Amino acid sequence: MKQNIDVTRQFAEFAARGSFEDLPDSTVDAGRRTVANALALSVGAAKHPAVESALATVRVLETEPQASILGRAERVGAMWAPLINGIGAHVEDFDDTHLDTVIHPGAPIVPAALAAAELVGASGRDMLAALVFGAETALRIGRGMGPGHFDRGWHVTGTAGHLGAAVAAGRLLDLSEEELIVAIGLASTQAAGLQEALGTMTKSLHPGKAASDGLEAALLALEGFTGPARPIEGRRGLAEVASPEQDYQKMVCALGDSWELEKNTFKPYACGIVSHPVIDGAIMLRGKLDPDSEVAEAVLRVNPVVLDVMGVKEPQSGLQSKFSVYHCLAVGFLYGAAGPAQFEESQARAPRVVDVREKVRVEPDSELARDEAHVTIRMSDGAGAQQHIEHATGSAESPMTNAQLKEKMRLVAEPILGSRVDAFVDNALKVHELDSVDILLDAARPKK
Amino acid sequence: MKQNIDVTRQFAEFAARGSFEDLPDSTVDAGRRTVANALALSVGAAKHPAVESALATVRVLETEPQASILGRAERVGAMWAPLINGIGAHVEDFDDTHLDTVIHPGAPIVPAALAAAELVGASGRDMLAALVFGAETALRIGRGMGPGHFDRGWHVTGTAGHLGAAVAAGRLLDLSEEELIVAIGLASTQAAGLQEALGTMTKSLHPGKAASDGLEAALLALEGFTGPARPIEGRRGLAEVASPEQDYQKMVCALGDSWELEKNTFKPYACGIVSHPVIDGAIMLRGKLDPDSEVAEAVLRVNPVVLDVMGVKEPQSGLQSKFSVYHCLAVGFLYGAAGPAQFEESQARAPRVVDVREKVRVEPDSELARDEAHVTIRMSDGAGAQQHIEHATGSAESPMTNAQLKEKMRLVAEPILGSRVDAFVDNALKVHELDSVDILLDAARPKK
Repeated sequence: MKQNIDVTRQFAEFAARGSFEDLPDSTVDAGRRTVANALALSVGAAKHPAVESALATVRVLETEPQASILGRAERVGAMWAPLINGIGAHVEDFDDTHLDTVIHPGAPIVPAALAAAELVGASGRDMLAALVFGAETALRIGRGMGPGHFDRGWHVTGTAGHLGAAVAAGRLLDLSEEELIVAIGLASTQAAGLQEALGTMTKSLHPGKAASDGLEAALLALEGFTGPARPIEGRRGLAEVASPEQDYQKMVCALGDSWELEKNTFKPYACGIVSHPVIDGAIMLRGKLDPDSEVAEAVLRVNPVVLDVMGVKEPQSGLQSKFSVYHCLAVGFLYGAAGPAQFEESQARAPRVVDVREKVRVEPDSELARDEAHVTIRMSDGAGAQQHIEHATGSAESPMTNAQLKEKMRLVAEPILGSRVDAFVDNALKVHELDSVDILLDAARPKK
Repeated sequence: MKQNIDVTRQFAEFAARGSFEDLPDSTVDAGRRTVANALALSVGAAKHPAVESALATVRVLETEPQASILGRAERVGAMWAPLINGIGAHVEDFDDTHLDTVIHPGAPIVPAALAAAELVGASGRDMLAALVFGAETALRIGRGMGPGHFDRGWHVTGTAGHLGAAVAAGRLLDLSEEELIVAIGLASTQAAGLQEALGTMTKSLHPGKAASDGLEAALLALEGFTGPARPIEGRRGLAEVASPEQDYQKMVCALGDSWELEKNTFKPYACGIVSHPVIDGAIMLRGKLDPDSEVAEAVLRVNPVVLDVMGVKEPQSGLQSKFSVYHCLAVGFLYGAAGPAQFEESQARAPRVVDVREKVRVEPDSELARDEAHVTIRMSDGAGAQQHIEHATGSAESPMTNAQLKEKMRLVAEPILGSRVDAFVDNALKVHELDSVDILLDAARPKK
């Protein structure tokens, strides 16, 4: 029997009535980390081919300079900055993850909040609050649509991300509850993103469009557009149409009292998160085995989802290699690292990496958690060792520290910002203390 | 067993290689009618609140004048003209319909082709060819996803419309086959639109965004974006994710030899098409009964889909009344007409209409075709009559003539264009003879 819960209205009330002052410190911290991580990734991707390609498209459209592209001097139309910043935050697959839903909340929602904040001249605190309420909405909607939504083939960052972006932008545009319902409806009806796009630039378009569509939805609602009253939970609403299961109680339970956003995690490795325990294991096995010797066999016992999303056996490009648990094992063991450098074009075809990749065998085991792995490596010389990773680094049980997060932000943003990177990292992590988001945007601009 | 057909590549080849010269006359005619009907509706809706609201949003974005809004003097950014023209073409629910798929191809695809044509300075012939190839792609993809896609709650004009718009714009931007595959992928991953939005402005956003996203997809592909090779038929491609059934053979069978677009039909009545046989019946019963007398009961035996999409029992607004077969029966019988005037706000609440609406009983009968109805009306004075409509006016078996289509175009465009309406109607129907689409766009502009 369906639960008759007015989900959409509850989210609209939540976003319209909630205040920054009432947020627990732990939620504010989770929000700050989410903002800082996403901004750093957008900065770092400022010259990525996907960003250059999207920006070339925007130049054809001759937009007015209204909003900032992170890591670049350009400003573009308010709809295009979130598109490009969203692409940048996600294109390296190095962003945050809410593990229950596999949503990456930063990439779709931070750029929408940022562009809306820039458009209205908001404070850093208001921007952060918008991010928190938007992300909480997206994560809860993802939770309520259950794993069935993901299993059907949807990229949940694209679908639920639309709603989070609309709520975040809607708060900054000061929408009423009724207007927020319209904005949520406009976002719901555009919620999309196919997992088929994994391993191509098109995947990064999902959060980009979620951000851009979300801001547009808020603007349309403000300008009097009308929409359905129950776009999430109605008979042909998003949850019913795009998932075989719905738990509306789970969506709204303890809304405003418990915060899903606090479970947001940050990636230490620049690839699909479900392969992170394998990388942890590979890196730890370097202490027991000699990575310069020949590998005879590597056996990975992992949750079955690993092969679903990371199953590329012979990646031919840097982007594809991020969806290859075989590649992850190889670089983790050979280099003791899995940052952007280990997923570059050259590494995807490096003979040494290919050699190890070919020795990897994956054994799916549904008894294992998604952040768990048993990694066994046997060398040709007869040596061998096994490592059990119970919770991957960056998981909810083993989160990155703020110091580790800062180090990651520096790693990705320094090539773009040079010596200005420290000021940027500091401002991004204390966004709630900034009188204006312009201070943060300036800090994210490279010196001319 | 899944068929292993390279659907996406076949559509890309089809669009890249097909030429206007090889199109059968009957297909060109279907294309002309599709263009003309959509343009007239966009012109007619130029001051509709949904259009005004969307335009107010675009004004916030301060876009450059690159593309024309039909029926208005304004030109806006190239991405925004298709959004607004698509909203305008669909918002009165008076547009075309491909009955097998319930796709309205004109509203998403004509605006995308028009804006791309304006951007590159194309001829009317090239614009028409782009529309034909784009529409054919959308209709075949809709066919292959089967009724299960619609039944799941998707608004197919929004989903398949995205792909048609991308192909149409892609042809005008002269994309290669490989680039068309990327554009189709970008469109597939954004394909969306919930039936929950029926009866609100948000429904009209579906073709608007399909048009805008489709043009953007073509531009991104031209600028080097990458995407999946099999976005339609891949394991997590559009057809697999968004429908419980897939028939890829049906999608590509006789591609270029038989044309689904020729089955496109045009609405004589300004409301959901499945209620048209009921309106035909109600109008015919005026010849046997006195509509000024009191109605005791009206019984409608119709295909079950009628209640699914036209089941609003007590519409409270003009827009809602378009999704009420009860309202359709009432205005058809009382006024002998069901044009935009019969679905205005005032009519939705007119006591005379409400009186009749309350007497209507619907009997779903899955034995009946979608364009079929048995309409029985009994009056309080004891009189009664029954009418069987085998095929509704505007159906494939009983199409509108060109003269009827011209009359409809005049009806909707004259309030905006005044005495210039005849020149507009003529130019729209001979679009393939125009050296430049600018001639058509000028004809669609009201005198200042």
